Amino acid sequence: MVAASLQKLLDELERLPGVGPKSAQRIAYWMLNTDRATAVRLADAIVEVKDTVRFCSRCFNYAEGDLCQVCASPERDHRTICVVSEPRDIPPIERTGAFRGVYHVLGGELSPMDGIGPEQLHIAELMGRLADPAIDEVIIATNPNVEGETTAAYLSRQIKPLGIRASRLASGLPVGGDLEFADEVTLGRAIEARRTL
Amino acid sequence: MVAASLQKLLDELERLPGVGPKSAQRIAYWMLNTDRATAVRLADAIVEVKDTVRFCSRCFNYAEGDLCQVCASPERDHRTICVVSEPRDIPPIERTGAFRGVYHVLGGELSPMDGIGPEQLHIAELMGRLADPAIDEVIIATNPNVEGETTAAYLSRQIKPLGIRASRLASGLPVGGDLEFADEVTLGRAIEARRTL
Repeated sequence: MVAASLQKLLDELERLPGVGPKSAQRIAYWMLNTDRATAVRLADAIVEVKDTVRFCSRCFNYAEGDLCQVCASPERDHRTICVVSEPRDIPPIERTGAFRGVYHVLGGELSPMDGIGPEQLHIAELMGRLADPAIDEVIIATNPNVEGETTAAYLSRQIKPLGIRASRLASGLPVGGDLEFADEVTLGRAIEARRTL
Repeated sequence: MVAASLQKLLDELERLPGVGPKSAQRIAYWMLNTDRATAVRLADAIVEVKDTVRFCSRCFNYAEGDLCQVCASPERDHRTICVVSEPRDIPPIERTGAFRGVYHVLGGELSPMDGIGPEQLHIAELMGRLADPAIDEVIIATNPNVEGETTAAYLSRQIKPLGIRASRLASGLPVGGDLEFADEVTLGRAIEARRTL
């Protein structure tokens, strides 16, 4: 006995991660009570993000042009590449201010159980970037869990023969956790104290 | 160092109730990974709800036409009116299945401290409805907190002289809580055991 368009909004909101029936209702009623402009701004932002965001052709981070803002920046140290699993792992590293290099997004982590091998990740593209003799260090910032460590070990075996320093974020990150949810201080220290593999 | 349109989406998401920076990020990345059609459906549902939902001219519930679905239904018992504070209080009562009457939404509760008196609520419109001799009961389902009880006491004083039965949801609702968050069983029992004021 809810207006049809309200029910439709509730259904769509419940698809969002972390949004159950109660939060969907709370958001929907907030939406009904807010001014139209605010609601439209959110709706537009959703469509715009789908229409403008794609993957950086170099590092596979999210980008609005051909290159992401990090790859396109002359201010960054392009000799140091930080390898992460997903684009969402980049903002927390940026917030620490402890890293001035560039990134490479794998698009996942090795997980033989789930059928994810090196070919399913952007590892060939990473090796292509490492052919540039200017590169002198790769920081492997995959998650501190089983898949992340497996991926780090695999990458270090590929990278060392090239004579490039491969490092791993220092322990200090809570083991078994997700890099995405680490606090800035812990993550900043982990970057500073990175260990050579 | 996040794509501009992604940052814009994060900003808009963070305005939502119960959505902090972390949940906004989780939702935004989900949005980037989902197919365009799903994202557009949500965006459209937001705009549609703003464009189609207004207040029922009779009970002030949300409605898509002149009357809300409850007021427009011939299946409902139009002799019993359940008075609630806000439209969001109606879906939990509907879910109990214990009430087959119609509603009246006050648009708030009496709160002299916040400058909300009887004139700020849809009380005059309720009294107008009660002039219909067919009405034989008003169930006052304002929240079981100070403002809700004050409002219920005020309404019962207005209604009794009309010779209409005024009842209040039975105790059983957690005192100090919000009706919106009550579970179906408790709320259903409270409706069945409503007491005459």
